[in-house]
Amino acid sequence: MNWENYVQKVVPYVAGEQPKDQNVIKLNTNENPYSPAQGVAEVIRNFDCEILRKYPDPNVSALVDILAQYHGLDNNQVFVGVGSDDVLAMSFLTFFHSEKPILFPDITYSFYDVWADLYRIPYECQTLDENFCIKIEDYKKENGGIVLANPNAPTGVMAEVSVLEEIIAANRDSVVIIDEAYVDFGGASCVSLIEKYDNLLVVQTFSKSRSLAGMRIGYAMGSSKLIQYLNDVKFSFNSYTMNTLTIVAGVASMMDEAYFRENIAKVVATRERTKLELAKLGFTFGDSKTNFIFATHKTVPAQEIFEALRKNKIYVRYWNKPRIANYLRISIGTDEEMDKMLTFLATFLKQK
Amino acid sequence: MNWENYVQKVVPYVAGEQPKDQNVIKLNTNENPYSPAQGVAEVIRNFDCEILRKYPDPNVSALVDILAQYHGLDNNQVFVGVGSDDVLAMSFLTFFHSEKPILFPDITYSFYDVWADLYRIPYECQTLDENFCIKIEDYKKENGGIVLANPNAPTGVMAEVSVLEEIIAANRDSVVIIDEAYVDFGGASCVSLIEKYDNLLVVQTFSKSRSLAGMRIGYAMGSSKLIQYLNDVKFSFNSYTMNTLTIVAGVASMMDEAYFRENIAKVVATRERTKLELAKLGFTFGDSKTNFIFATHKTVPAQEIFEALRKNKIYVRYWNKPRIANYLRISIGTDEEMDKMLTFLATFLKQK
Repeated sequence: MNWENYVQKVVPYVAGEQPKDQNVIKLNTNENPYSPAQGVAEVIRNFDCEILRKYPDPNVSALVDILAQYHGLDNNQVFVGVGSDDVLAMSFLTFFHSEKPILFPDITYSFYDVWADLYRIPYECQTLDENFCIKIEDYKKENGGIVLANPNAPTGVMAEVSVLEEIIAANRDSVVIIDEAYVDFGGASCVSLIEKYDNLLVVQTFSKSRSLAGMRIGYAMGSSKLIQYLNDVKFSFNSYTMNTLTIVAGVASMMDEAYFRENIAKVVATRERTKLELAKLGFTFGDSKTNFIFATHKTVPAQEIFEALRKNKIYVRYWNKPRIANYLRISIGTDEEMDKMLTFLATFLKQK
Repeated sequence: MNWENYVQKVVPYVAGEQPKDQNVIKLNTNENPYSPAQGVAEVIRNFDCEILRKYPDPNVSALVDILAQYHGLDNNQVFVGVGSDDVLAMSFLTFFHSEKPILFPDITYSFYDVWADLYRIPYECQTLDENFCIKIEDYKKENGGIVLANPNAPTGVMAEVSVLEEIIAANRDSVVIIDEAYVDFGGASCVSLIEKYDNLLVVQTFSKSRSLAGMRIGYAMGSSKLIQYLNDVKFSFNSYTMNTLTIVAGVASMMDEAYFRENIAKVVATRERTKLELAKLGFTFGDSKTNFIFATHKTVPAQEIFEALRKNKIYVRYWNKPRIANYLRISIGTDEEMDKMLTFLATFLKQK
């Protein structure tokens, strides 16, 4: 016998590549092409490093308070973690502690089944319809919890809040998590439903719309009861997950609403323009409300386009998986980056 | 029925208090009284915040490489996490996946049973002897893993490496974790045993000896096989746990060996002087090799001293728990802070 018998063996999630080559046009991990708010740079530059000798505030109060205020919630309705992945993983561990399967779509954020496997949570994937939309009735069966990304990833498709409310209302006996990582780019948030449904947890992130993927800040909002349970598990895992610099940087980002709006408006404008150009080139795609476009070409296989782009140092995301193997997920970069990609695609597709 | 039925309910760990009052003499969380290395402040001040829009390096290569080099290991033998709590919790989840109980002392870091409960790992506490030392034979029974803090917390007592080697050698069928959070203050590390035992995982931290509690950096060292399993679980939880600023700050700290040695020498000198003074005041304690002293008074109950100190804005740590309810854990602060505490204690104890 050997110690390896006692090891938890898992198949890890594979994140989009982070190339060291600075010349790569990186449209593969849904990063924001613009800098974080100027105030973030200022608080970091002026940070007094002496205080790093002390542990951070375990309650992350400064950031919790400003988020609560921003979203019109009490500060006992907000939980902050190391990116929304940390928040979601901890939420799975906390709320999906049932023998019944949790439900999520067959095509969605590919971390959901990884977390379920890690924590041995039974799950059942529900098939999206041919337009990648959820079917409400799929989420009206017995379950141990529900998680829905809205807008969904990697499809970019959004469900109306009324559709989600119907699902939340039909499942008062389990927790429904709405993962709104991309909601700021034009989606409608379920935050407004929190007061009405104590089984609703809404998760958002600073990684996309706030240009802070490198800082790792995500958060959950819900009834004070849900947040209390989440805090109990967090404090059973690691009292101090958010470091002191991250807390001040997050607060600084929240202080600059004008920049936040401007940044989003730029990404959205580029996205809409890119949609028109991609359509001209023979691509089809849903009406993405995110910072990426999930596109398929009418004649040329996605994998072929993916490899050609990659060879030319333009990275997009491709999954060789059922139902989506003919799609590319293209993050929205700067106008200049998108133009380079579109120019390359025009030339490449003409040769086909 | 209600969603609360499916909630994982836990009793969280309670960390030492982080008072907002800056006038408190804070000797309750084993923080280092001195600043981090100057280089840390420099890299933070000069950090280019534009790169925060991108995800961090998921492999934390820069920090892993410098730690491997420092400890004479390969870079596939080092794993970095959000403080040693994160590293230890993830190690419990990864390596203690057995039906057999894991073993650890009855008096030790109070997070071990919290993690075991959280991940439903069976455990059996082994009673330390009357000097708070481990008894080797306790760790030669069937088990699903072993975790030992060395030096131990909150006692400060150190086991010889030869004692630990006997335990590691006797348990080749399970993983033995040696938690060396305090080893830099005069303990002997088990890192030298890594090449010999592929079931040994050694965990260290930047929080104490490197004055970076506020930055959250811990790491594990072991056979490449152990580290691979740990990475698989980490990548199943959250690809990006270490933010970009933390990585550069950690590297900067590692670059200044002279400051690191000087900082430790100061803490150790203050500790040894404090021991002499506490003994004069009627305290007894083990020969701590850490940055704290675990002391009991020959006549005055610990709780009474704890409360008197607290009333005078001197915070130390006290646990109302079996066997240690008459002890105080006093972190080593600056000479000035220790003098203030000693002066207060002298006056207070004279009145008894």
